[in-house]
Amino acid sequence: MGSRGYSKWLTATITVALAALSASTAISFYFCRKKSKALDSKVQELEISLNSSLQKCAAERQGRIRAQQALREAVAQPKAEHLEQTSYPMVPIGFVQSCFSTRNGTPRQPLLVPLARACLVFNSTRVPPVSLEGLAEYSHCWIIYVFHLNTDIEKLWKQPSRSKFKAKVRVPRLKGGRMGVFATRSPHRPCPIGLTAAKVEAVQGNMVLLSGVDLVDGTPILDIKPYLPYCDSIQGAAVPKWVMEDNMLAVASVSFSEGFSASFAHCWEIAGKKSLYASSDEFQCLIKQVLSWDIRSVSQRNQPHYPVFKKGNGKASYDSPDSDDNHDEDASGYENDKVPLHSDNVIYHLILEGINVSYRIDCNGNVMVEEAMVSSDYANVIQNHCSYSMWRDKLS
Amino acid sequence: MGSRGYSKWLTATITVALAALSASTAISFYFCRKKSKALDSKVQELEISLNSSLQKCAAERQGRIRAQQALREAVAQPKAEHLEQTSYPMVPIGFVQSCFSTRNGTPRQPLLVPLARACLVFNSTRVPPVSLEGLAEYSHCWIIYVFHLNTDIEKLWKQPSRSKFKAKVRVPRLKGGRMGVFATRSPHRPCPIGLTAAKVEAVQGNMVLLSGVDLVDGTPILDIKPYLPYCDSIQGAAVPKWVMEDNMLAVASVSFSEGFSASFAHCWEIAGKKSLYASSDEFQCLIKQVLSWDIRSVSQRNQPHYPVFKKGNGKASYDSPDSDDNHDEDASGYENDKVPLHSDNVIYHLILEGINVSYRIDCNGNVMVEEAMVSSDYANVIQNHCSYSMWRDKLS
Repeated sequence: MGSRGYSKWLTATITVALAALSASTAISFYFCRKKSKALDSKVQELEISLNSSLQKCAAERQGRIRAQQALREAVAQPKAEHLEQTSYPMVPIGFVQSCFSTRNGTPRQPLLVPLARACLVFNSTRVPPVSLEGLAEYSHCWIIYVFHLNTDIEKLWKQPSRSKFKAKVRVPRLKGGRMGVFATRSPHRPCPIGLTAAKVEAVQGNMVLLSGVDLVDGTPILDIKPYLPYCDSIQGAAVPKWVMEDNMLAVASVSFSEGFSASFAHCWEIAGKKSLYASSDEFQCLIKQVLSWDIRSVSQRNQPHYPVFKKGNGKASYDSPDSDDNHDEDASGYENDKVPLHSDNVIYHLILEGINVSYRIDCNGNVMVEEAMVSSDYANVIQNHCSYSMWRDKLS
Repeated sequence: MGSRGYSKWLTATITVALAALSASTAISFYFCRKKSKALDSKVQELEISLNSSLQKCAAERQGRIRAQQALREAVAQPKAEHLEQTSYPMVPIGFVQSCFSTRNGTPRQPLLVPLARACLVFNSTRVPPVSLEGLAEYSHCWIIYVFHLNTDIEKLWKQPSRSKFKAKVRVPRLKGGRMGVFATRSPHRPCPIGLTAAKVEAVQGNMVLLSGVDLVDGTPILDIKPYLPYCDSIQGAAVPKWVMEDNMLAVASVSFSEGFSASFAHCWEIAGKKSLYASSDEFQCLIKQVLSWDIRSVSQRNQPHYPVFKKGNGKASYDSPDSDDNHDEDASGYENDKVPLHSDNVIYHLILEGINVSYRIDCNGNVMVEEAMVSSDYANVIQNHCSYSMWRDKLS
């Protein structure tokens, strides 16, 4: 009787225990599987992320390597054996502050315009004032500069060795005929470097005052050299006929209209303080000198009575007595030509030190200066310019 | 009897089943846990890998961005407002083949050495022959070139805006005194650009023959411009006293030793075919013309009787009548000076078209030309040079 009860109890206990154990292990197993599944999917996620990150890494690395290689090529030092591809980077040593605010009006024979002044301002790090010592003892100097206004100047930085240029340019006296560009002083050359002689007026600190210039305001300067007559002045040098005829074009006379004085006096009140000229009279002399030599292009000269409405009336070529670069889109100095379409006369413009001087010229070559106005971007033009007052002591 | 046996069997079955179930769930649980642990550690691994990959990715990206930015700056088109940092890369349009094989001997007043010839060879892609049309009608031209022999030329490509240079150079007549470099024609300038005038003899295809040159063989040419006397020839240009005195140094006489003819005839057999000169007589005239103007440096002139053993005897400055750049390490043209240490006379050397001409000069300025030898690197020097035969028709 007792043992049967006991074994029944034992059996029941064992059964319950086993049942509990089963249940608990089943529950544990259930949770474990759940966790395992979660981990599994997390592993899959991580693997996907890792893959994508590795791919991105490889792409960034490739991009970095490419950029570094291009950078190396861009700044590579040229090897001596490949001198044909060598590019010599020239950094300007200074800039020109010129009375000529635009290319329009720059004289073809600058030394015949002695009042045409420019102040060269040199970077004082690259050109310490002591490096200019002795320059003032020369009467003249050479300026080597960049034709920075060339519309195609940007080609210099893109495959400079393949910059295209027009091999021939039009020459006025050949009536539209062309000559090789190297037979001219056209600005449109493979290396856009200009050369001009000027008179040395004074040297002060890191600045040089010149006269008889044909440089445009803002021109970057690469070098200044003393003029040595025994090397640079060649007696009896010959030029072709088509050059000689083009350059001695003096006008018949230059007069100022009655209205001019009033308009100019008004300008001078604003502009006088920043001018390179001592007085309004001196500035007026400059106007007269510049206009004494016909600065119009040959086509304009040949058709004085036809109304002309085009950009750049009175345009003169840049640094070039004998080329007529009508194809240079930015040769124009001035766009707001007040040109009456059916008048007998054409109004030309000349901008000196930001002052817009308008004039007419009749068929006999008599110039009538109409008026002067402060041009719309005067403030920009004249900003930071040095004035006559800085040079007064040295010039007197 | 039967039911008790049945329930015992049932109990036993249930017990066994539960035991089996427990065992199996325990085993499953065990394996699940094992897998779960493996997954856990895998997850940790993956997380570490992913982290490290993401960090690497960020680093590569930063490197790429930096490289691309540097690349952009290196090739950036300059903005007009930042012209101060603009570098204008100038690629030569051609090279000089000159009778002067080294800087040593280049004349100070080249136009006084009319037999000094050079053949300019232009890159026919950049300078198509038509672009030279009309140049031959001018008697003279300007050559704008690079002072490629400057020892510090490589600084141009490293931070060109900060290339250091000596602000003042020694000027002979000031007995060691210095002048600003821009008051001289010294080659050591921030922009190493040279300017020289020469006579135009002939133009053929993409080549120009010049005379009266002072250019060194191999000089890179940036530009050639016609010489316009009404712009470029300035009457009465003044220079400082210390310039004037230095340049009219003619020697008393130039004679050829007895041994010269034999040694020179031997040279001419080898060199005559490749020479820019029509005959050995013409070449001998060249030697005489070059040596007629004292090309020695001032210090050498002042101490003719002291034995001198140094590199570059007879060194003349490059494109520079009035500077004495003894500090230019590579100014020497020739290193194998045969200089007897205790002799009264010094032997100088001059290399023309690869022919080494040796001479002495006594205290009265009489030059005795000793002998001529084909120099050791003659083949290199004269390689690809055009010869007189190419120009014969044009010159006669």
